[in-house]
Amino acid sequence: MKVEVNQKEFYQAIQTVKKAVSTKTTLPILSGILLRTQGNTLKLVGTDLEIGIECFVDATVTTEGDIVLPAKYLASIIRELPNEKVILATEPSNNTSQIKCDNSQFNIHGSAADEFPLLPEIESNTKFSISQQKLKKIINQIEFAVSEDENKPFLTGGLLILNDQKVELVATDTYRLAYREDEISQETSATEKAIIPNKTLTELSKLLDKSADEVEIVITENQILFTFAGISIVSRLIEGQFPNYQQVIPNQTKTQVEVDKNTLLQATKRAALLAKKESNIIKINFESNRLIITSNAPEIGQAYEEVPVSLTGPESEIAFNASYLMDCLKEIDKEKVIIELSGALAPGVIKTNSEQKYIYVIMPVRSA
Amino acid sequence: MKVEVNQKEFYQAIQTVKKAVSTKTTLPILSGILLRTQGNTLKLVGTDLEIGIECFVDATVTTEGDIVLPAKYLASIIRELPNEKVILATEPSNNTSQIKCDNSQFNIHGSAADEFPLLPEIESNTKFSISQQKLKKIINQIEFAVSEDENKPFLTGGLLILNDQKVELVATDTYRLAYREDEISQETSATEKAIIPNKTLTELSKLLDKSADEVEIVITENQILFTFAGISIVSRLIEGQFPNYQQVIPNQTKTQVEVDKNTLLQATKRAALLAKKESNIIKINFESNRLIITSNAPEIGQAYEEVPVSLTGPESEIAFNASYLMDCLKEIDKEKVIIELSGALAPGVIKTNSEQKYIYVIMPVRSA
Repeated sequence: MKVEVNQKEFYQAIQTVKKAVSTKTTLPILSGILLRTQGNTLKLVGTDLEIGIECFVDATVTTEGDIVLPAKYLASIIRELPNEKVILATEPSNNTSQIKCDNSQFNIHGSAADEFPLLPEIESNTKFSISQQKLKKIINQIEFAVSEDENKPFLTGGLLILNDQKVELVATDTYRLAYREDEISQETSATEKAIIPNKTLTELSKLLDKSADEVEIVITENQILFTFAGISIVSRLIEGQFPNYQQVIPNQTKTQVEVDKNTLLQATKRAALLAKKESNIIKINFESNRLIITSNAPEIGQAYEEVPVSLTGPESEIAFNASYLMDCLKEIDKEKVIIELSGALAPGVIKTNSEQKYIYVIMPVRSA
Repeated sequence: MKVEVNQKEFYQAIQTVKKAVSTKTTLPILSGILLRTQGNTLKLVGTDLEIGIECFVDATVTTEGDIVLPAKYLASIIRELPNEKVILATEPSNNTSQIKCDNSQFNIHGSAADEFPLLPEIESNTKFSISQQKLKKIINQIEFAVSEDENKPFLTGGLLILNDQKVELVATDTYRLAYREDEISQETSATEKAIIPNKTLTELSKLLDKSADEVEIVITENQILFTFAGISIVSRLIEGQFPNYQQVIPNQTKTQVEVDKNTLLQATKRAALLAKKESNIIKINFESNRLIITSNAPEIGQAYEEVPVSLTGPESEIAFNASYLMDCLKEIDKEKVIIELSGALAPGVIKTNSEQKYIYVIMPVRSA
């Protein structure tokens, strides 16, 4: 293989596929990136067998070929190169690659490309598309609620549901649940469900930009494929039964307030400074014209915050883990949020007033 | 005590004195900041008994008084306050402080101010002044060479020498030595030497800005005082005999090159990517019109870099720890540097061509 590529484009492509490269693998070849000429491009692939990412850079191909090079070293070398014009040449006899750029020259030991696992071919009739911007937002608004409990693998991902002209994404760690729905243009034939691993959601969200360009999504029984901006991401799906999230969302409410999102977020952030370390509890009193947020770290001191609101229904109080409340407020981009309570020991609900439905349920804690 | 202060000014002052606050102290009161009214100001003091920092903020003082509040909580609370106008009130009966700002209110448990150690009064005839900008540069150019070896405490600081109209600062960890001198306007009576602890140099450099404003420096037998921009830093000095650094600086040279500083730094940075992890060795061949920098990490690969130079004297070669070379190049703000060698096993010297003398000596290593 001998190709010429642009340093910036090559580095960006390496950074893209590197998100799928395993840092702690028992299979050494998976710590590498597959490079392969394809037409007038150089294809790059990284995978940890759970998720695979593929992308392309324009290349002037002198000799076709392929090789696997260690991701970490490849990335750090390409980043530091002194000029745009990079020549990459491989010596198939010993799986070594030479990188040349101006007065810099590197020899890197790699592996034969035929030892690198192939990404699966994904074909299915279950397809839809959504803008990058929308998908990024939807993921960010639920991802923090994904469980890290490996004993309940079906909670360690986000549940994607395709239903009519609607896409829904749900995550829960049993302490809180985040639900977001949005419209898609295609009508899907039947309801489809897929649990997408958290790592896939995280890396996908990082690669999505705020553009209106479409992401094509294809779902099979075990896998999901995202294609956008010349990047393909294939991920396995998590097996198992996601809990019935509709049962978790309270369908009645007694107390409702509308509150300025940023004022609430800042007040919660301050009150959290003096919440007890272990429990991180803040108490919120819902009064007719204000929320009173308090916390108490006995060794250190107390915090008291007032946030103006307009309340409907009876006055009430509830205690939350402050982080759980902040997680959702940080990802809401509306000026106002609605909080609904049905008593101190029932779950609290945070919603936004808009056509794109967002529902966040937090389990209360008993305050001291 | 009851005072009103500006949030931004108060936060900045807390950040300033916090640099002296110990994070791992056996004396709990040292994790706090002393706050004391003084005229129309609020004085803040932090100390870990090795270094003490004092500064002032303008305050509207309603009631005089003082208290010690935990630095970490005070900093995070003041940072997050919603408005500029901050009221700080203390309740001497129980050493509690109340912080009020808009709808936010905090009670913080503190300690009585009379338990807080006093910073020593520093008086001496050994005084000089130098601009903030100059002092910052001088410190940064030698500080990385300070030793971390607690078995040789006299090497864990920078040696300051006052001599005629000259200030010198030297540091060495026995693998390399950095020397910088500059002119000062005052004539000092006799040669004065003081070993300033590394932490003091680090925190002082962070607080210095790039202005031409003067720093007043007073030296006693055991302590040094820096005063600038309303900030006072008192530090103990390290006892012991600093080695005779003049013996370390080679006074003759065989091979000399002048080289573009940034080109050399970038090439060294790239070659270091493939230096062996433990030793970090790069080899430099000095040829008539170029330096050839090579490295070899047997498992990974090799790097080869060429840097154009003009050489005086015989061709030569030497091997260095790459980090030691980069440390000094990063802090040199000249376009060109001069490297002098007297053979592969003699120390290499890096200099700049300017009236402010800078000399950096690196011990060579045997390359494989």
